[in-house]
Formats: sequence, structure tokens, C-alpha cells
Amino acid sequence: MARKPTKEDKFSFGLWTVGWLAADPFGDKTRAALKPWEYAERLAELGAWGITFHDNDVFPFDATDAERDEIVRRLKETVDATGLTIEMVTTNTFTHPIFKDGGLTNNDRSIRRFGLRKVLRNVDLAAELGATTFVMWGGREGAEYDSSKDLNAAFDRYKEGLDTVAGYIKDKGYNLRIGLEPKPNEPRGDIFLPTVGHALALIAELDNGDVVGLNPEVGHEQMAGLNYTHALAQALNAGKLFHIDLNGQKGLKYDQDLVFGHGDLLSAFFTVDLLVNGFPGGGPRYDGPIHFDYKPSRTDGMDGVWESAAANMEMWLQLAEKAKAFRADAGVQEALRLSGVYELGEPTLAEGESIEDFLADRSAYEDFDAEAAAARDYHFVDLYQKAVMHLIG
Amino acid sequence: MARKPTKEDKFSFGLWTVGWLAADPFGDKTRAALKPWEYAERLAELGAWGITFHDNDVFPFDATDAERDEIVRRLKETVDATGLTIEMVTTNTFTHPIFKDGGLTNNDRSIRRFGLRKVLRNVDLAAELGATTFVMWGGREGAEYDSSKDLNAAFDRYKEGLDTVAGYIKDKGYNLRIGLEPKPNEPRGDIFLPTVGHALALIAELDNGDVVGLNPEVGHEQMAGLNYTHALAQALNAGKLFHIDLNGQKGLKYDQDLVFGHGDLLSAFFTVDLLVNGFPGGGPRYDGPIHFDYKPSRTDGMDGVWESAAANMEMWLQLAEKAKAFRADAGVQEALRLSGVYELGEPTLAEGESIEDFLADRSAYEDFDAEAAAARDYHFVDLYQKAVMHLIG
Amino acid sequence: MARKPTKEDKFSFGLWTVGWLAADPFGDKTRAALKPWEYAERLAELGAWGITFHDNDVFPFDATDAERDEIVRRLKETVDATGLTIEMVTTNTFTHPIFKDGGLTNNDRSIRRFGLRKVLRNVDLAAELGATTFVMWGGREGAEYDSSKDLNAAFDRYKEGLDTVAGYIKDKGYNLRIGLEPKPNEPRGDIFLPTVGHALALIAELDNGDVVGLNPEVGHEQMAGLNYTHALAQALNAGKLFHIDLNGQKGLKYDQDLVFGHGDLLSAFFTVDLLVNGFPGGGPRYDGPIHFDYKPSRTDGMDGVWESAAANMEMWLQLAEKAKAFRADAGVQEALRLSGVYELGEPTLAEGESIEDFLADRSAYEDFDAEAAAARDYHFVDLYQKAVMHLIG
Amino acid sequence: MARKPTKEDKFSFGLWTVGWLAADPFGDKTRAALKPWEYAERLAELGAWGITFHDNDVFPFDATDAERDEIVRRLKETVDATGLTIEMVTTNTFTHPIFKDGGLTNNDRSIRRFGLRKVLRNVDLAAELGATTFVMWGGREGAEYDSSKDLNAAFDRYKEGLDTVAGYIKDKGYNLRIGLEPKPNEPRGDIFLPTVGHALALIAELDNGDVVGLNPEVGHEQMAGLNYTHALAQALNAGKLFHIDLNGQKGLKYDQDLVFGHGDLLSAFFTVDLLVNGFPGGGPRYDGPIHFDYKPSRTDGMDGVWESAAANMEMWLQLAEKAKAFRADAGVQEALRLSGVYELGEPTLAEGESIEDFLADRSAYEDFDAEAAAARDYHFVDLYQKAVMHLIG
Repeated sequence: MARKPTKEDKFSFGLWTVGWLAADPFGDKTRAALKPWEYAERLAELGAWGITFHDNDVFPFDATDAERDEIVRRLKETVDATGLTIEMVTTNTFTHPIFKDGGLTNNDRSIRRFGLRKVLRNVDLAAELGATTFVMWGGREGAEYDSSKDLNAAFDRYKEGLDTVAGYIKDKGYNLRIGLEPKPNEPRGDIFLPTVGHALALIAELDNGDVVGLNPEVGHEQMAGLNYTHALAQALNAGKLFHIDLNGQKGLKYDQDLVFGHGDLLSAFFTVDLLVNGFPGGGPRYDGPIHFDYKPSRTDGMDGVWESAAANMEMWLQLAEKAKAFRADAGVQEALRLSGVYELGEPTLAEGESIEDFLADRSAYEDFDAEAAAARDYHFVDLYQKAVMHLIG
Repeated sequence: MARKPTKEDKFSFGLWTVGWLAADPFGDKTRAALKPWEYAERLAELGAWGITFHDNDVFPFDATDAERDEIVRRLKETVDATGLTIEMVTTNTFTHPIFKDGGLTNNDRSIRRFGLRKVLRNVDLAAELGATTFVMWGGREGAEYDSSKDLNAAFDRYKEGLDTVAGYIKDKGYNLRIGLEPKPNEPRGDIFLPTVGHALALIAELDNGDVVGLNPEVGHEQMAGLNYTHALAQALNAGKLFHIDLNGQKGLKYDQDLVFGHGDLLSAFFTVDLLVNGFPGGGPRYDGPIHFDYKPSRTDGMDGVWESAAANMEMWLQLAEKAKAFRADAGVQEALRLSGVYELGEPTLAEGESIEDFLADRSAYEDFDAEAAAARDYHFVDLYQKAVMHLIG
Repeated sequence: MARKPTKEDKFSFGLWTVGWLAADPFGDKTRAALKPWEYAERLAELGAWGITFHDNDVFPFDATDAERDEIVRRLKETVDATGLTIEMVTTNTFTHPIFKDGGLTNNDRSIRRFGLRKVLRNVDLAAELGATTFVMWGGREGAEYDSSKDLNAAFDRYKEGLDTVAGYIKDKGYNLRIGLEPKPNEPRGDIFLPTVGHALALIAELDNGDVVGLNPEVGHEQMAGLNYTHALAQALNAGKLFHIDLNGQKGLKYDQDLVFGHGDLLSAFFTVDLLVNGFPGGGPRYDGPIHFDYKPSRTDGMDGVWESAAANMEMWLQLAEKAKAFRADAGVQEALRLSGVYELGEPTLAEGESIEDFLADRSAYEDFDAEAAAARDYHFVDLYQKAVMHLIG
Repeated sequence: MARKPTKEDKFSFGLWTVGWLAADPFGDKTRAALKPWEYAERLAELGAWGITFHDNDVFPFDATDAERDEIVRRLKETVDATGLTIEMVTTNTFTHPIFKDGGLTNNDRSIRRFGLRKVLRNVDLAAELGATTFVMWGGREGAEYDSSKDLNAAFDRYKEGLDTVAGYIKDKGYNLRIGLEPKPNEPRGDIFLPTVGHALALIAELDNGDVVGLNPEVGHEQMAGLNYTHALAQALNAGKLFHIDLNGQKGLKYDQDLVFGHGDLLSAFFTVDLLVNGFPGGGPRYDGPIHFDYKPSRTDGMDGVWESAAANMEMWLQLAEKAKAFRADAGVQEALRLSGVYELGEPTLAEGESIEDFLADRSAYEDFDAEAAAARDYHFVDLYQKAVMHLIG
């Protein structure tokens, strides 16, 4: 049984997670809404360290400034009282019908302007509340119909929008970094920036890309059949893993937002292994919040909401303990070496070896015994079995 | 009925396409091999302009230098006689058992060195034969088991390898550009650089990335459930669409390499529309070869091989004709405008508009009538239907 | 350009299709509701022959009997006035929170009883309104969590529920047949009866299975990566294709309900080919309504709703014309013969050939030239290309 | 650490599993072949109870009768000496080019006859060697091109072939049952009988279906995105679970044949839970062999082959122990009750309750408090979390 979570674990939840009322495309909501601060209070009791939210998780789309200020003040009061941190804020540019064709890449310029202003306004709020990450999920930036977009213009507008927000953050001197959240589809047929790779690529094209990185979500990468841990690794390798969204997904279907570990458990184990232990040979580490972006089951009531919130944290703690034991096992270390895992850390060309030196090294090619090398037994399955047995041993 | 292909169409085929002997994971080969130059001759007769190949499509893995030179000489003879162009060359770092854990990212350093040398040697051949594109498909760079790789080291090695090859090309002054070919899986469980996005992102991290771009394959993107035309667009937008691999795939399953258009026909239509007509509002264009990377059906014999090769070209020509008529249709142009497709080309901020100006524009946000804007009817389905009716009309 | 639809085409639409208000999991509704009879009126104007509905598309879940009767009366009035047919009725056992764990297989027995009564009540309405098909889509019959169901009990309850409804129909002497509608997932993680195959298998276990058949939906089969036309064929072969739901889906993702033909166009062509032309060698035919179960795009307004409704019918008519020309083409007939398509209609054992005869036929095995037979060129790609060229020629 | 396997565990392996030489669509074989009896000997040493094989795993396609008899004799000698059981035999109708368009449903009638004779000949061998299951995997029965098959004829031929084989078994009085093995695709684009459901449905149409049941494979169902445990349950509920093929698969991609548990571990846990503990409320049980159909990794050598074979058995034993503890836990039993899992076992209509009684029960519908019932908290996530914590606790 995993120990109780504490604030040192840096567990964080979106208010929209426990606050999901459980309407889905074929069904009405099954739970009643609480006030934002009521969710926060209860999360604090369960051991959470932080909360995050979209603007319209807290106040309505059409709130007056006074209404907005009052609600935010009340939430802040609870946050302060409970010792919670508002670590991330994000903007809802997807629920209101105005965003049905997107915000930053809407075909309608007046809506692009409106959406961008809504985002900028929320940047100010994020900074004011002390958040350090500003997530941008472009869930409506995309298309169902290949004829409906000038795709080059769409990427140009996406870059323009991101550069404007990032530039504004830098101009204002806010201690904020943008975390892009990729997703392949749903609610659009094809979303721009469908995976971590596409988002990293776009960031590399930005003028203000230095403050823009990634917020990869487990289920979103898996909805493209991709390996989430590989995605984290490429983002870390590029210095761009700014935030994470943990949850669960069972394969290629609608976005499930299950409890972390309740989808692909083995993948979750190796994600925790990477986040807790780092790469085998060292290298960039993630030290941000352990943020959950899940949905309590529609079949559960309010008790079930809190049970599932607690389950996410319990899962992380249990997997973390198993992952540490896995790496600390001398037999595993021996198996890692036998499989050549550490050997991959050695540069292919020797230090100082020039291309001419390399081409002249007959032992590397002309005199190399390819058949002998081909016979190497990597013992990858045995190593993997050792990992699984640590997990379920 | 589409017209006959000519050299002006710049159709190009991999020798491994028509040369596939049709062994699959559950079955033995169903066709006998011809000589490389025999495939080339026949492709020329069918109207192809170019051919492409892996080193070991032409000469064996263990050929002596003399054998290799003789075979290459014989192929070049045919190429010259038939007026074909060798437009692209690529290296086989996947068939021989030595590459079972990859080439550039193999856990075994001696194999990485061997693989890199094999690639460099092939760069010389590509340059010698006048190819302008050097494709690198890292099909074995990946893993089935999350424990089997130091992922940070893997990305470092991948970058080291690519930078070495790209640096060599630049040092030698070759007129060659590298085209990376992403693929999500098969033959590895998870391949590094699974999509166009991931490859673009890695290129942005290279020292010699200026000569490295993309060679996206239809089926490979679709094996991740992604939109191929979107992938081409992001690559074009980044100035990185160096080459293309056209074929067909019916959804998420093994790599099918069907004839172009025989998978997702509507997607193929919009791919051709982009390549032939460009983005609606202008912007970067692709002007490289129309390269097919397909496999003749295992159920077909040698006649079927040539029928299917011809089918690829016929499909392109037919789709191109339809795509041109689609864009030239005044009703379509009106529908594009009604849907706001051209409006997406207008920058969101006006020329010279500062962030302060923008924040001060009350018409953009405070006084904006969101409900009215939300009511816009984009008529996307009607536009799409017009496209489909052009295609099948 | 396809001709205008007429009542002879037997086009039919669910009221929930054009009546979809376009709320999705991440967004609020974008269109206002019309009255049921307003949708019906407009569909009739567009050329539809029939309409279909769930009980709660027409009257609210909690309508009194009087309210219900009045609304139904009003709808019937319009139907009669416009010459429309109410060809199918179905029951909503998924929207109200009470059905969050299903109707017929809910873990809660009192809810199973409530759900079954709701269905039976709707059977009476269907019969009263002259419908001949009663569709049952068990969209909430399923689970996200493998621990949450006694699966044997679930199948027993499913069969009990279906047998009760089918038995009631037979007892009452209603001219109604049940059409089960399979779906792999969404809104449940795993839905029982995920495909046409599973539903056919369950029907074979029923006591009253004679009045129970299938209502396969294009997108639902494709959400499991399966071939819709194959599904229709197996249902026809079993004498169980009672009704169809036509729409479009682009691969493995959330349920898209696109316009028919706007997903996998080639598959749609062969579906129409089967429905219009029958199997090449004859056999069971479908002669029911051409029923569309699609959703107008969330990005479109009310004009877009009618444009998309019309697009479905236009697509069918265009594909039907192409399919007829395809089959009527003498070259295609020759290609079908060359490919052995008609040869598959010949029984493998000759008429009257006993198993002993067969075992004694040395020409079939011992003296058979397997290598020669293996060399057959089926020319499948050429035949397929002929089909595609008919479609886009 | 799981205990050592014993013959009582009834673990069984296909000779083609450990005997896979690791050629794949993009690579040559990486391991050398042993003799069939050498694989058997080693499996016995590792603790296996049974072996299974295709005819051509043991003797070549073109073996003379004398060669065949000698090889079979030699294998039988080892089997007897080691105490192994040959529990299942199956026929290879997919490797030789003659089967490129299938065996029982090949468009070529002479090939259908040849294929059927090959199967019947192998039935005799299966009976002679004491096997009790005869698996039929129709991996080549299918199509890539919708135009290439008369689908009605294909299902007729499939039924004719199965009925012939099943009738022959019954005529001869063999103690053999046929186990159909569904698969959605690979090596064909769309395989007939893509899932357990489709196979159950076809069996229901057979004349001799009493001796025909299912041999479901984990990865094959998962390649259609379906729940393997649900598939086993429907087959059990229909009395048709005759045999199983355990392995691992990571989502929708090529057929991976990983070690059991190395794909979707949570699904594997619930599969073992069902097979070891049965349905919560009792019902049909599986008591056949625990048969593994996996492939040792291509990156592993011969040591890795035996490590992976052992890993399958270790995984089963470990999961079985966890599953027993899960069900024995009083807290879990309480949670199962709270979630209503046992309640699903109660018939929806009371014993002896007629349809009239049911319709007259106002408490079931008219007076039922739907809102109250809708508020039920099923606590499904908490129950699932308890299961996962048992697994990794």
C-alpha cells in the first residue's frame, strides 16, 4: 500500500478534472457542480499541492469584470488558506460556439482577434496568481474537411498567435512559460499539432520560442498510437518538457481521460521510471509538478470523484516506489549492461575523431565481422520481464 | 481516361517497389527477381522519368567492390540509354541481421560505426550517380521494450549520425539533400521519429540541419491516424519538404504500400490538389519528383506488377486533372471565400499594429459581439461536397 | 451531377441527425432546436421518403402521457401531410443519467426493469406509427473497467432483454423486426456487441432470434478498423441485414458521423455497389430503406444542416450511377472473370461428390501441380484500378 | 517470484513460436533453425506440458510420405520420452504461394480443393497423434480489394469447407474439436472472420457446428481495438471457448506476438482472473491448455528464445497468484457487491413473471423514481483501483 501523498510530492489537479459533470456526446451530466473553491479545498485535503484551471472553469465566459474579480478573489482565499499553489493556468478557447472553427487559426479574423485577446487577458491573470506555466491546448485548431483550410496560412497564424502571446509574456517580464498541449483529434477531425513532435517543430519556427515548450498528455499521444515515454524523452532532449498531463487511455478511441495507470499500465510504469529516475545515463530531468488531467468516471458519484482523485496519487506513489526498486536492483543493472543500454551513451565517433579518421578506420567497416556482430543476443525480453516482475512482484 | 505519362510528369519509382518479391511475415515470395536494369527499362517504357534505390536493391550486402562497381555500371548504362534519372538514393540499414537493433541508434557502438560508414559510402555513390536527394529511413531505429533504450542517448546518437552525414555532404560539396522518412512502427514496435512532426523537430536541433528535410510517405503518416496533407503542409511551411513517397494505406494496420489512391482516395485527392495547385493563398511549393513507394500485390504476377506501376501514374494524372478543375471552378472559388479560406491568410494583427494597439482595440474584445460571431455558418460541408463531386462527377 | 432524389429512392433520415444541436465533449451547442415536425417537413422537401427517431428525439424523457400524445399526433400530422414514412423507431436508453451503466445490462436490476419497460412502451409506439424496423443500439451496454461486470451475466441479461422485446413483438403480432446496431466503443470504453459479428452471434443464441437482425452503421464498423461491406455481406449471407445506417468516418477516432462518402470514399463506393447491384454471382439482396445516420458539422449553421442532408442523397445517387456503369462495363466483366470472382461461386466439392470421392481424387492433391497453380496472376490491382477509374473517370 | 511451472499447469507452446527464425517484412532471419524435437525437448525442460504445431512446422510442404513419416516418428519419440502432450495440431494454408489468395475461399477452385485436402490430411495426423483440438486460422482468407471477391460466395465456401472438415471428423469418430482463430488483418488487408464475434456467427450457420468453436488470440482481438476478456466471455457464454492463444500486443499496429503480459498488462490480468477464477457469479469455465502463441524478439538470440518462453509461464503464474488474492480479498468482495457486480446475475424478470405481469408492475416504470436511481454511485473506479493495487501491490 502506497503512503499518503504530501505537498512534497507536488501533485496537482485541474479544477476541470474533479469538476467534470460527466456529460458526454451521448448523455447528460450525472453530477452536480460544486464551487471552484470547494473542489480546491477537497483536493488539498486529499494531499494535493497544486491546482490548475481554465479561465472558464472558474468564472463564466460572459462574466463581468466585477463578477470575475469576486470569484477569483474567493478562490485565491481558499488557495491561500489551504496552502495550495496555483501552478498553471490555461485558457478555454474551445467550449463557446464562437470557437467552433478554432481560436488562433479560425478562418474568421475577428474571431482570431477575439481569441487572442482572451488568451492575453488570461496571461495577466496567470501571472497575477503566481502560476509559472501557461498551457495552450489548441483543441479547436484544426479541420474535418481538407478543403476548409489554407494550411500554410493556418501554420502562419498559429505561429503569429503563439509569438504574440510569448512576446507579451517576455515584454511584461512575467515568470511564465507556455506549454503547448498536442492532440491528434477530438473535438476536430484532425487537430494541428497532433503530437509532441509537431509542436516541437513549430516551436523551433517561433521568434519567441525560448519561453514555449511542451505539456504532453498521456492519452493524447496514445490516441495516435505513439509511445508517451518516447515523447517525453524527445521533449527533454530538446530542453522543452515544461509540464505534464498524466492520465490513462485504452488505445485508439475517443479521449478517455482515465485515472493515470488505468490505461496502459506498463507504459505508465516506464513514464514514472523516467520522471523519477531520469535516463539511465543521465541527462535532462523534469522537475515540474506531477499534474493529473483525468476525468472521474461518469458512472461514479461525488464519492467516486474523490476516490478517483486519490487513485491517481496512489498510483504515482506506488509506481515510483517500484521504479526506484527496479533501478536499484543489481541484477537489473547487470541486465541493462548486457543489453547495451549504457553503451548507447558513448558517442559513435570517438572524442576528437574526424570524419577522415573515421573513414580511414578499416576496423569499422572493411575489416568488420558483420556476421559476428549480427549474432549479438541483446536479451531485451529478459530485461523487460525483470521490469514487469518488479512491477507485479 | 487519363493521358499517358511522360518524362515531364517527373514520375519516379523505387527499384524495390516493382522489385518486391512478395514475401510477407506469413508467406514465401510469389515472384522471381529480375535484374535491376530490367526493372528500370520497363519503368522507362511505362513513362517513368526517374528511379531510386537502396544500395542493396542493386548489389548484395556482401558484394566485393568489383562486383558492386560492375553492377552499378550496368545499371547506369541502362539509365543513360533510357533517359532515366537516378533522382534519389537511400541506404539499407534494416535488412541484414546486424541492424536488428538499428543502425545509428543501435545499442552496440561497433554496429553504429558500421552503419554510419555504410551510409557514408552510399552518399558517395548517390553523388556519383547524380542523385539530388538522399533518403534516410530509420526503420530499425526504435524499440519494442521501454527498458531497452537510454532514450536521451538514442536522440543524441541519432543527431550525431545525421550531423555526421549532413556534414560530410557539405564538406564534399555534393549537390545532395537528406530526406528523413518518418514511420511510427513496423518493423520496430515504436520507431524514433514516428511522424513528420518528430523529424522536423529533430532537424531543428542539428548543426547541419540546413541540408536535412523530409521525405514523408502517405501510409506512414496514416499508420499514426494522421492527415498526410497536413504533414506536407507543415513541412512546406517550414521549408523542409524535400521529397515525397506516394502510396496507399487503409487505416491502422500493417504497412500496406498499396497503389497511390487505393487507400484513402479523398486524402489522395487533396494531396494532389496541394502539390499541383499549391495553397489557396500561395506560399511554398513542392517541385520535386512524384515518387511512388508502393508494393505490387502479392496476389499478382509480373503482369500485375506492371499494371500496378502504371496504375500509380494513371491515378496521379487523373487526380491532378480533377484537382485543377476543382480550383478553376468559379463556384468553388465563391465557396472558398464563403468558408473564409482566403481570410485565414490575413494576419491576425494588422500590419504595424503593436501589442498595445491590439490590447487597446475595444472592438476586438470588450465590444465584440461574440454571439453574433458564433452564429457564422462556415458551409464547410457544402464546400467539401463540391470537392467530392468534382472528383467523382 | 446527380439527379434530384425522389421518394422512390427510399431515402430516410433520423430526426436526431438534422436535429443535432452540435454540443460535443468539449463544446456547447452551436445551433437552436426546431420542432420535430419542422425537421420532417424540410426533409420531405429535400426529397426524403422516410424519417426515423428515438422516442426522446420527439418528446422529453419526463413527458406526461398527454404531452407525449400531443407531440406524436402533431408529428404524425406532418408525416401524413408530406407523404413521409416513419419507417423505423428506436429507443433512447443512453442520454438520461439513469442509463449511465446501461439499460438491459445495467448492474442495477431496477434500472434494467425500467429500461426494458421504456423499450416495450416504444415498441407499441413504433407499431402504432407503422414502422417496420425497431432499432436497438446498446450504446451504454458495456464497461470501461474489466472488474465492473460479470460478463457471463451481462450476456445472459442482454439475451433476456432482447428475447423479451422480440417475444413481445411476436405476441402482439406486430409487423416489426428488431435491428441491432453494434458499436465498439463510445460512449462506453468497450461496448458489448462491438461489431456486426458479435451481434449476429448473439442473435443465434436467442429464442426469438427470427425477428432479430442487424442495422450496421458505416462508422461503427470502421471504428474497429473493419470493412463495412464485408459486414453487410456476412449479415446478408446470414439473412440478417434488416436495416442500414450510412455515414462517414475517417479512421480510428471518436465517432464522427460525417456525410456518407465523406469518410472512406472507396469503401462507400463498394457498399453502394453491393446494395445496388448485389453480389456478382447473385444471392441475398437488401431492399430496405437507404437510411442516413450522420451529423451536420458543428461548424455549419442551419443552412449547412440542409446542405449536408442533401449531400448524403446526392452522394448515394452519384455512387449508384457509377456502380451501375462499373458492373455494366464489358471490360470489367472480363476482368472479374480473369480474377476468378465468379469462380468463387462454384462449390468446392462437385454436386454429389462425397467425401470419399473427394479423398480419392488424386488430381486434387497427390497429382496436383502446386507450383503451377501458385503462379496464377489474379490481376486484382488492375481490376480495382478499373473500379476507381470508373468512380473518378 | 513465481514458482516453477509444472505439467499440472498445462502450459503449451506452438513449435512455430520458439522456432520462429525472426525474418520480418523488412529483415532477414536472425536465428538458425533447430530440429522440431529439439524445440520440444527444451520446452519440456522449461516446464511445458504440451506442444502444438502446423504440419509444415515439422515437415516441408513438399515432403514425400516417407520423409513426413520419419520426421513425425522422430518427433513423437521425443514427445513420448519427455512426457509432453501434442494437444493441438493446425494446418499451414498460408506460407506457400499457392495460398496467396487463401485456401478455403481462394477464387481458384482447384486451389480450394487442394487446400481442403491438405487440411483433411492433417486432421488424420492430429487424430493419430492424440491431439484434441484442431485449430483453423484462415489468415489468407480475405482480400485487400473490395472488387476481388464475391463476398456471399466467400462465406458460402468458408462454410462448405468448415462443414466438410467438421463432418469428416464426426464421420471418423475422432476425439477432435475445431478451434477457429479470428484475426482482423495481416497478412490480408481484411481477413474474413476478423473477430471472435464473426467466427461465432459463422459457426451458428454450420451443419456440423457442434464440433466447431473458438481459439481466440489476445493480439488478434486487440488489433481490432477490442477487449480480449470480453471476447472470451462471449465465447464461453456460447459454449464455444475450445482453446486459447496467449500473447501480447501494444495496440493497433502489425501483429507483434509479444510475451503474454508484455502488451496490455491490465487486460492480461483480467484474462487470467477470468480463466483462473471464473465469472464472479459462476457459469461456464475454460479448462483447456494454457497455450502461448508468441514470437521471441528478433533482437534476441537462442538464449533469449528460452528466456522469453520461460517469461510467458512466469507471467501466467504470477498473474494467477495475484488474481486469486484479488478475488479472495474481503474488501474486494464488498466492493464487487457495492458496484452491483453480483446483482447483474439476477434475471431482470422475476422467476415466473410473465410479460403481462411485468407490464402491469407500476413500480418498474410509472412509479419508478428515475432521478433517484440515476444518482447511484457505482464506485467502479475504486473497485478497479483495488484490482490494480492487488496487481502491483
